[in-house]
Amino acid sequence: MRKADGKQIPQRVVSRLAMYYRVLSQLEKGGVERISSRELGEMMGITPSQLRQDLSYFGEFGQQGYGYKVSYLHLEISRILGLEKQHSMILIGVGNLGRAIASYTNFRNRGFELVGAFDVREELIGKKVDDIDIQPTTELRAFLRQNKVDIGILTVPASQAQQVADILIEEGIKGIWNFAPLKLNVPESVIVEHVHISDSLYSLSFRLHEHFN
Amino acid sequence: MRKADGKQIPQRVVSRLAMYYRVLSQLEKGGVERISSRELGEMMGITPSQLRQDLSYFGEFGQQGYGYKVSYLHLEISRILGLEKQHSMILIGVGNLGRAIASYTNFRNRGFELVGAFDVREELIGKKVDDIDIQPTTELRAFLRQNKVDIGILTVPASQAQQVADILIEEGIKGIWNFAPLKLNVPESVIVEHVHISDSLYSLSFRLHEHFN
Repeated sequence: MRKADGKQIPQRVVSRLAMYYRVLSQLEKGGVERISSRELGEMMGITPSQLRQDLSYFGEFGQQGYGYKVSYLHLEISRILGLEKQHSMILIGVGNLGRAIASYTNFRNRGFELVGAFDVREELIGKKVDDIDIQPTTELRAFLRQNKVDIGILTVPASQAQQVADILIEEGIKGIWNFAPLKLNVPESVIVEHVHISDSLYSLSFRLHEHFN
Repeated sequence: MRKADGKQIPQRVVSRLAMYYRVLSQLEKGGVERISSRELGEMMGITPSQLRQDLSYFGEFGQQGYGYKVSYLHLEISRILGLEKQHSMILIGVGNLGRAIASYTNFRNRGFELVGAFDVREELIGKKVDDIDIQPTTELRAFLRQNKVDIGILTVPASQAQQVADILIEEGIKGIWNFAPLKLNVPESVIVEHVHISDSLYSLSFRLHEHFN
Protein backbone atom coordinates (compact mmCIF):
# COMPACT_ATOMS: atom_id res chain seq x y z
CA MET A 1 0.00 0.00 0.00
CA ARG A 2 1.68 3.18 -1.19
CA LYS A 3 0.54 6.62 -2.17
CA ALA A 4 -0.34 7.12 -5.81
CA ASP A 5 2.97 8.94 -6.28
CA GLY A 6 4.87 5.93 -4.92
CA LYS A 7 5.93 7.54 -1.63
CA GLN A 8 6.00 5.29 1.38
CA ILE A 9 3.56 6.05 4.18
CA PRO A 10 5.40 7.49 7.23
CA GLN A 11 5.50 5.25 10.29
CA ARG A 12 3.75 7.85 12.46
CA VAL A 13 0.79 7.78 10.05
CA VAL A 14 0.72 3.97 10.19
CA SER A 15 0.70 4.06 14.00
CA ARG A 16 -2.21 6.49 13.95
CA LEU A 17 -4.14 4.29 11.48
CA ALA A 18 -4.18 1.53 14.09
CA MET A 19 -5.54 4.05 16.61
CA TYR A 20 -8.20 5.27 14.13
CA TYR A 21 -9.23 1.66 13.58
CA ARG A 22 -9.52 1.03 17.32
CA VAL A 23 -11.53 4.18 18.03
CA LEU A 24 -13.83 3.59 15.04
CA SER A 25 -14.43 0.00 16.25
CA GLN A 26 -15.58 1.42 19.59
CA LEU A 27 -17.81 4.03 17.92
CA GLU A 28 -19.38 1.43 15.65
CA LYS A 29 -19.97 -0.91 18.59
CA GLY A 30 -21.58 2.02 20.42
CA GLY A 31 -23.99 2.59 17.53
CA VAL A 32 -22.54 5.92 16.35
CA GLU A 33 -23.36 6.40 12.65
CA ARG A 34 -21.49 9.53 11.70
CA ILE A 35 -18.85 11.78 13.18
CA SER A 36 -17.10 15.01 12.25
CA SER A 37 -13.35 15.21 11.81
CA ARG A 38 -13.31 17.62 14.76
CA GLU A 39 -15.05 15.12 17.08
CA LEU A 40 -13.00 12.18 15.82
CA GLY A 41 -9.80 14.19 16.18
CA GLU A 42 -10.72 15.18 19.75
CA MET A 43 -11.29 11.54 20.73
CA MET A 44 -7.78 10.79 19.58
CA GLY A 45 -5.98 13.90 20.74
CA ILE A 46 -5.07 15.16 17.26
CA THR A 47 -6.22 18.13 15.20
CA PRO A 48 -8.92 17.72 12.51
CA SER A 49 -6.41 18.83 9.86
CA GLN A 50 -3.92 16.16 10.99
CA LEU A 51 -6.68 13.56 10.70
CA ARG A 52 -7.69 14.73 7.21
CA GLN A 53 -4.06 14.83 6.13
CA ASP A 54 -3.40 11.27 7.35
CA LEU A 55 -6.47 9.90 5.58
CA SER A 56 -5.62 11.80 2.38
CA TYR A 57 -2.74 9.34 1.83
CA PHE A 58 -5.37 6.73 1.02
CA GLY A 59 -8.27 8.57 -0.61
CA GLU A 60 -11.33 10.66 0.16
CA PHE A 61 -13.44 9.32 3.01
CA GLY A 62 -15.45 12.25 4.35
CA GLN A 63 -17.91 14.75 2.94
CA GLN A 64 -17.82 18.48 3.55
CA GLY A 65 -20.57 19.34 6.06
CA TYR A 66 -21.41 15.70 6.78
CA GLY A 67 -18.24 14.30 8.29
CA TYR A 68 -17.43 10.60 8.19
CA LYS A 69 -19.78 7.65 8.01
CA VAL A 70 -18.39 5.51 10.86
CA SER A 71 -19.05 2.04 9.41
CA TYR A 72 -17.64 3.02 6.01
CA LEU A 73 -14.47 4.62 7.41
CA HIS A 74 -14.00 1.67 9.78
CA LEU A 75 -14.23 -0.80 6.90
CA GLU A 76 -11.91 1.22 4.68
CA ILE A 77 -9.25 1.55 7.39
CA SER A 78 -9.58 -2.15 8.11
CA ARG A 79 -8.82 -2.78 4.41
CA ILE A 80 -5.91 -0.34 4.42
CA LEU A 81 -4.44 -2.16 7.42
CA GLY A 82 -4.86 -5.51 5.65
CA LEU A 83 -7.21 -6.78 8.36
CA GLU A 84 -9.64 -8.35 5.88
CA LYS A 85 -6.88 -10.82 4.98
CA GLN A 86 -5.93 -13.97 6.89
CA HIS A 87 -2.58 -14.03 8.67
CA SER A 88 -0.98 -17.13 10.12
CA MET A 89 1.16 -16.67 13.20
CA ILE A 90 3.42 -18.80 15.36
CA LEU A 91 4.39 -18.14 18.95
CA ILE A 92 7.93 -18.74 20.13
CA GLY A 93 8.21 -18.65 23.91
CA VAL A 94 5.20 -19.91 25.85
CA GLY A 95 5.79 -18.11 29.15
CA ASN A 96 3.28 -15.81 30.84
CA LEU A 97 3.53 -13.13 28.18
CA GLY A 98 3.31 -15.66 25.34
CA ARG A 99 0.19 -17.19 26.86
CA ALA A 100 -1.37 -13.79 27.38
CA ILE A 101 -0.79 -12.82 23.74
CA ALA A 102 -2.03 -16.19 22.45
CA SER A 103 -5.28 -15.93 24.35
CA TYR A 104 -6.17 -12.44 23.08
CA THR A 105 -9.19 -13.78 21.23
CA ASN A 106 -9.70 -10.52 19.38
CA PHE A 107 -6.78 -11.35 17.15
CA ARG A 108 -8.44 -14.47 15.80
CA ASN A 109 -11.64 -12.53 15.15
CA ARG A 110 -9.59 -10.15 13.00
CA GLY A 111 -7.99 -12.86 10.88
CA PHE A 112 -4.81 -13.50 12.85
CA GLU A 113 -4.64 -17.24 13.44
CA LEU A 114 -2.16 -18.99 15.68
CA VAL A 115 -0.92 -22.13 13.87
CA GLY A 116 2.06 -23.18 15.98
CA ALA A 117 3.71 -22.71 19.38
CA PHE A 118 7.28 -23.47 20.40
CA ASP A 119 9.30 -23.52 23.60
CA VAL A 120 12.65 -24.87 24.75
CA ARG A 121 11.31 -26.05 28.13
CA GLU A 122 10.75 -29.82 28.06
CA GLU A 123 7.97 -29.73 30.64
CA LEU A 124 5.82 -27.67 28.25
CA ILE A 125 6.16 -29.95 25.23
CA GLY A 126 2.89 -31.66 24.34
CA LYS A 127 0.86 -29.28 26.46
CA LYS A 128 -1.34 -26.72 24.80
CA VAL A 129 -1.66 -22.97 24.53
CA ASP A 130 -4.92 -21.62 23.10
CA ASP A 131 -5.67 -25.14 21.69
CA ILE A 132 -2.32 -25.35 19.90
CA ASP A 133 0.19 -28.09 20.80
CA ILE A 134 3.46 -26.74 22.18
CA GLN A 135 6.40 -28.15 20.21
CA PRO A 136 10.13 -28.09 20.99
CA THR A 137 11.93 -25.11 19.45
CA THR A 138 14.22 -27.60 17.69
CA GLU A 139 11.22 -28.31 15.45
CA LEU A 140 10.80 -24.66 14.47
CA ARG A 141 12.81 -24.80 11.24
CA ALA A 142 11.06 -27.94 9.98
CA PHE A 143 7.67 -26.44 10.81
CA LEU A 144 8.43 -23.28 8.83
CA ARG A 145 9.46 -25.37 5.82
CA GLN A 146 6.17 -27.27 5.86
CA ASN A 147 3.74 -24.50 6.75
CA LYS A 148 2.96 -21.03 5.46
CA VAL A 149 3.61 -18.63 8.33
CA ASP A 150 3.30 -14.85 7.98
CA ILE A 151 4.20 -13.61 11.43
CA GLY A 152 6.44 -14.90 14.22
CA ILE A 153 5.56 -13.70 17.72
CA LEU A 154 8.76 -13.51 19.73
CA THR A 155 8.12 -13.88 23.46
CA VAL A 156 11.41 -15.55 24.40
CA PRO A 157 13.97 -14.06 26.82
CA ALA A 158 16.22 -11.39 25.30
CA SER A 159 19.17 -13.80 25.42
CA GLN A 160 17.45 -16.15 22.94
CA ALA A 161 15.67 -13.63 20.75
CA GLN A 162 18.29 -13.03 18.03
CA GLN A 163 18.99 -16.74 17.64
CA VAL A 164 15.29 -17.52 17.15
CA ALA A 165 14.84 -14.50 14.86
CA ASP A 166 17.70 -15.79 12.68
CA ILE A 167 15.86 -19.08 12.13
CA LEU A 168 12.64 -17.23 11.27
CA ILE A 169 14.50 -15.00 8.81
CA GLU A 170 16.41 -17.87 7.18
CA GLU A 171 13.15 -19.70 6.63
CA GLY A 172 11.56 -16.69 4.95
CA ILE A 173 9.28 -15.16 7.57
CA LYS A 174 7.81 -11.80 6.51
CA GLY A 175 7.03 -10.23 9.86
CA ILE A 176 8.25 -10.46 13.45
CA TRP A 177 6.21 -9.17 16.38
CA ASN A 178 8.95 -8.77 18.95
CA PHE A 179 8.25 -8.56 22.69
CA ALA A 180 11.84 -9.34 23.73
CA PRO A 181 13.60 -6.25 25.12
CA LEU A 182 16.31 -6.32 22.45
CA LYS A 183 16.89 -4.60 19.12
CA LEU A 184 16.96 -7.38 16.52
CA ASN A 185 19.31 -7.44 13.54
CA VAL A 186 17.14 -8.24 10.52
CA PRO A 187 17.43 -7.68 6.77
CA GLU A 188 15.38 -4.81 5.33
CA SER A 189 12.92 -7.23 3.74
CA VAL A 190 11.68 -8.41 7.14
CA ILE A 191 9.20 -6.21 8.99
CA VAL A 192 9.75 -6.01 12.74
CA GLU A 193 7.24 -4.45 15.09
CA HIS A 194 8.74 -4.08 18.53
CA VAL A 195 6.46 -3.72 21.57
CA HIS A 196 8.16 -1.56 24.20
CA ILE A 197 5.98 -2.10 27.24
CA SER A 198 8.27 -0.07 29.49
CA ASP A 199 7.91 3.11 27.38
CA SER A 200 4.36 3.60 28.59
CA LEU A 201 5.40 3.12 32.23
CA TYR A 202 8.04 5.81 31.79
CA SER A 203 5.48 8.15 30.20
CA LEU A 204 3.22 7.51 33.16
CA SER A 205 6.08 8.30 35.53
CA PHE A 206 6.77 11.57 33.70
CA ARG A 207 3.15 12.67 33.81
CA LEU A 208 2.86 11.78 37.52
CA HIS A 209 5.70 14.15 38.31
CA GLU A 210 4.48 16.79 35.89
CA HIS A 211 1.21 16.86 37.85
CA PHE A 212 2.27 16.30 41.40
CA ASN A 213 5.60 18.08 41.78
CA MET B 1 7.61 19.15 35.07
CA ARG B 2 6.59 22.03 32.86
CA LYS B 3 8.34 24.43 30.57
CA ALA B 4 9.57 27.66 32.11
CA ASP B 5 6.64 29.48 30.50
CA GLY B 6 4.18 27.10 32.17
CA LYS B 7 3.11 25.25 29.01
CA GLN B 8 2.47 21.58 29.35
CA ILE B 9 4.77 19.21 27.48
CA PRO B 10 2.94 17.64 24.51
CA GLN B 11 2.20 13.92 24.84
CA ARG B 12 4.14 13.08 21.66
CA VAL B 13 7.26 14.64 23.23
CA VAL B 14 6.70 12.60 26.41
CA SER B 15 6.39 9.39 24.36
CA ARG B 16 9.64 10.18 22.59
CA LEU B 17 11.41 10.87 25.90
CA ALA B 18 10.77 7.26 26.91
CA MET B 19 12.27 6.15 23.60
CA TYR B 20 15.31 8.43 24.07
CA TYR B 21 15.81 6.93 27.50
CA ARG B 22 15.63 3.38 26.15
CA VAL B 23 18.05 4.05 23.28
CA LEU B 24 20.51 5.92 25.53
CA SER B 25 20.41 3.01 28.01
CA GLN B 26 21.46 0.69 25.18
CA LEU B 27 24.20 3.05 24.02
CA GLU B 28 25.57 3.45 27.54
CA LYS B 29 25.51 -0.32 28.09
CA GLY B 30 27.37 -0.67 24.78
CA GLY B 31 30.11 1.67 26.01
CA VAL B 32 29.32 4.58 23.64
CA GLU B 33 30.54 7.83 25.22
CA ARG B 34 29.26 10.52 22.90
CA ILE B 35 26.90 10.81 19.97
CA SER B 36 25.78 13.52 17.55
CA SER B 37 22.15 14.58 17.28
CA ARG B 38 22.22 13.27 13.69
CA GLU B 39 23.33 9.78 14.78
CA LEU B 40 20.98 9.69 17.75
CA GLY B 41 18.09 10.90 15.57
CA GLU B 42 18.84 8.22 12.97
CA MET B 43 18.75 5.47 15.59
CA MET B 44 15.26 6.60 16.52
CA GLY B 45 13.90 7.50 13.11
CA ILE B 46 13.52 11.23 13.75
CA THR B 47 15.32 14.29 12.41
CA PRO B 48 18.14 15.95 14.40
CA SER B 49 16.10 19.16 14.59
CA GLN B 50 13.13 17.26 16.05
CA LEU B 51 15.44 15.76 18.67
CA ARG B 52 16.94 19.15 19.56
CA GLN B 53 13.50 20.72 19.71
CA ASP B 54 12.17 18.00 22.05
CA LEU B 55 15.14 18.33 24.39
CA SER B 56 14.89 22.14 24.36
CA TYR B 57 11.73 21.82 26.48
CA PHE B 58 13.96 20.79 29.34
CA GLY B 59 17.24 22.63 28.89
CA GLU B 60 20.52 22.55 27.01
CA PHE B 61 22.13 19.11 26.85
CA GLY B 62 24.44 19.11 23.83
CA GLN B 63 27.36 21.15 22.64
CA GLN B 64 27.85 22.52 19.15
CA GLY B 65 30.42 20.37 17.37
CA TYR B 66 30.60 17.79 20.16
CA GLY B 67 27.11 16.33 20.31
CA TYR B 68 25.77 14.70 23.44
CA LYS B 69 27.63 12.99 26.24
CA VAL B 70 25.67 9.71 26.45
CA SER B 71 25.91 9.10 30.21
CA TYR B 72 24.98 12.71 31.01
CA LEU B 73 21.99 12.84 28.64
CA HIS B 74 20.85 9.43 29.89
CA LEU B 75 20.94 10.60 33.49
CA GLU B 76 19.18 13.88 32.71
CA ILE B 77 16.38 12.15 30.81
CA SER B 78 16.05 9.64 33.60
CA ARG B 79 15.54 12.60 35.99
CA ILE B 80 13.07 14.29 33.65
CA LEU B 81 11.07 11.04 33.51
CA GLY B 82 11.10 10.82 37.31
CA LEU B 83 12.97 7.51 37.20
CA GLU B 84 15.33 8.47 40.02
CA LYS B 85 12.30 8.43 42.35
CA GLN B 86 10.70 5.38 43.97
CA HIS B 87 7.21 4.37 42.80
CA SER B 88 5.03 1.86 44.57
CA MET B 89 2.70 -0.19 42.37
CA ILE B 90 -0.05 -2.72 42.88
CA LEU B 91 -1.22 -5.30 40.37
CA ILE B 92 -4.92 -6.03 39.97
CA GLY B 93 -5.54 -9.16 37.91
CA VAL B 94 -2.97 -11.94 38.25
CA GLY B 95 -3.57 -13.76 34.97
CA ASN B 96 -0.90 -14.48 32.38
CA LEU B 97 -0.46 -10.83 31.44
CA GLY B 98 -0.39 -9.69 35.07
CA ARG B 99 2.28 -12.27 35.88
CA ALA B 100 4.30 -11.27 32.84
CA ILE B 101 4.24 -7.59 33.84
CA ALA B 102 5.04 -8.36 37.49
CA SER B 103 8.11 -10.38 36.59
CA TYR B 104 9.66 -7.70 34.36
CA THR B 105 12.59 -7.29 36.72
CA ASN B 106 13.78 -4.18 34.94
CA PHE B 107 10.98 -2.19 36.53
CA ARG B 108 12.24 -2.88 40.02
CA ASN B 109 15.76 -1.87 38.99
CA ARG B 110 14.33 1.47 37.90
CA GLY B 111 12.51 2.21 41.13
CA PHE B 112 9.09 0.71 40.40
CA GLU B 113 8.29 -1.61 43.27
CA LEU B 114 5.35 -3.99 43.39
CA VAL B 115 3.82 -3.81 46.88
CA GLY B 116 0.51 -5.65 46.42
CA ALA B 117 -1.35 -8.05 44.10
CA PHE B 118 -5.08 -8.72 43.90
CA ASP B 119 -7.36 -11.15 42.11
CA VAL B 120 -10.99 -12.25 42.38
CA ARG B 121 -10.18 -15.93 41.79
CA GLU B 122 -10.22 -17.82 45.06
CA GLU B 123 -7.74 -20.44 43.91
CA LEU B 124 -5.06 -17.75 43.59
CA ILE B 125 -5.47 -16.23 47.06
CA GLY B 126 -2.45 -16.85 49.28
CA LYS B 127 -0.27 -17.82 46.32
CA LYS B 128 2.47 -15.49 45.20
CA VAL B 129 3.41 -13.44 42.17
CA ASP B 130 6.96 -12.08 42.05
CA ASP B 131 7.27 -12.74 45.83
CA ILE B 132 4.10 -10.78 46.65
CA ASP B 133 1.11 -12.50 48.29
CA ILE B 134 -2.01 -12.47 46.14
CA GLN B 135 -4.97 -11.02 48.08
CA PRO B 136 -8.68 -11.06 47.28
CA THR B 137 -9.83 -7.96 45.36
CA THR B 138 -12.31 -7.33 48.19
CA GLU B 139 -9.24 -6.26 50.23
CA LEU B 140 -8.17 -3.68 47.65
CA ARG B 141 -9.86 -0.67 49.26
CA ALA B 142 -8.54 -1.44 52.74
CA PHE B 143 -5.04 -1.95 51.35
CA LEU B 144 -5.09 1.42 49.61
CA ARG B 145 -6.14 3.11 52.83
CA GLN B 146 -3.24 1.59 54.74
CA ASN B 147 -0.49 1.83 52.14
CA LYS B 148 0.97 4.50 49.92
CA VAL B 149 0.45 3.37 46.34
CA ASP B 150 1.38 5.51 43.34
CA ILE B 151 0.38 3.33 40.41
CA GLY B 152 -2.31 0.68 39.87
CA ILE B 153 -1.56 -1.85 37.12
CA LEU B 154 -4.86 -2.96 35.63
CA THR B 155 -4.64 -6.43 34.08
CA VAL B 156 -8.23 -7.52 34.74
CA PRO B 157 -10.73 -8.42 31.98
CA ALA B 158 -12.37 -5.42 30.27
CA SER B 159 -15.67 -6.24 32.00
CA GLN B 160 -14.13 -5.58 35.44
CA ALA B 161 -11.77 -2.75 34.56
CA GLN B 162 -13.98 0.29 35.23
CA GLN B 163 -15.23 -1.11 38.52
CA VAL B 164 -11.69 -1.68 39.77
CA ALA B 165 -10.55 1.70 38.42
CA ASP B 166 -13.35 3.38 40.39
CA ILE B 167 -12.03 1.92 43.65
CA LEU B 168 -8.49 3.04 42.80
CA ILE B 169 -9.73 6.55 42.01
CA GLU B 170 -11.93 6.81 45.12
CA GLU B 171 -8.94 5.84 47.26
CA GLY B 172 -6.76 8.51 45.69
CA ILE B 173 -4.49 6.68 43.26
CA LYS B 174 -2.42 9.01 41.08
CA GLY B 175 -1.73 6.82 38.07
CA ILE B 176 -3.29 3.83 36.33
CA TRP B 177 -1.35 1.66 33.89
CA ASN B 178 -4.20 0.10 31.98
CA PHE B 179 -3.84 -3.10 29.94
CA ALA B 180 -7.59 -3.79 29.74
CA PRO B 181 -8.94 -3.15 26.23
CA LEU B 182 -11.36 -0.46 27.41
CA LYS B 183 -11.35 3.33 27.62
CA LEU B 184 -11.62 4.18 31.32
CA ASN B 185 -13.66 7.07 32.68
CA VAL B 186 -11.39 8.88 35.11
CA PRO B 187 -11.24 12.40 36.55
CA GLU B 188 -8.63 14.72 35.04
CA SER B 189 -6.47 14.50 38.12
CA VAL B 190 -5.74 10.79 37.51
CA ILE B 191 -3.14 9.92 34.90
CA VAL B 192 -3.98 6.89 32.76
CA GLU B 193 -1.49 5.26 30.44
CA HIS B 194 -3.22 2.72 28.23
CA VAL B 195 -1.20 -0.04 26.56
CA HIS B 196 -2.78 -0.97 23.22
CA ILE B 197 -0.99 -4.17 22.32
CA SER B 198 -3.11 -4.72 19.22
CA ASP B 199 -2.07 -1.41 17.63
CA SER B 200 1.39 -2.76 16.92
CA LEU B 201 -0.04 -5.93 15.35
CA TYR B 202 -2.17 -3.79 13.04
CA SER B 203 0.87 -1.69 12.12
CA LEU B 204 2.72 -4.90 11.34
CA SER B 205 -0.18 -6.07 9.18
CA PHE B 206 -0.15 -2.76 7.27
CA ARG B 207 3.55 -2.90 6.61
CA LEU B 208 3.37 -6.54 5.49
CA HIS B 209 0.86 -5.58 2.80
CA GLU B 210 2.70 -2.39 1.94
CA HIS B 211 5.73 -4.53 1.13
CA PHE B 212 4.28 -7.66 -0.32
CA ASN B 213 1.24 -6.53 -2.32
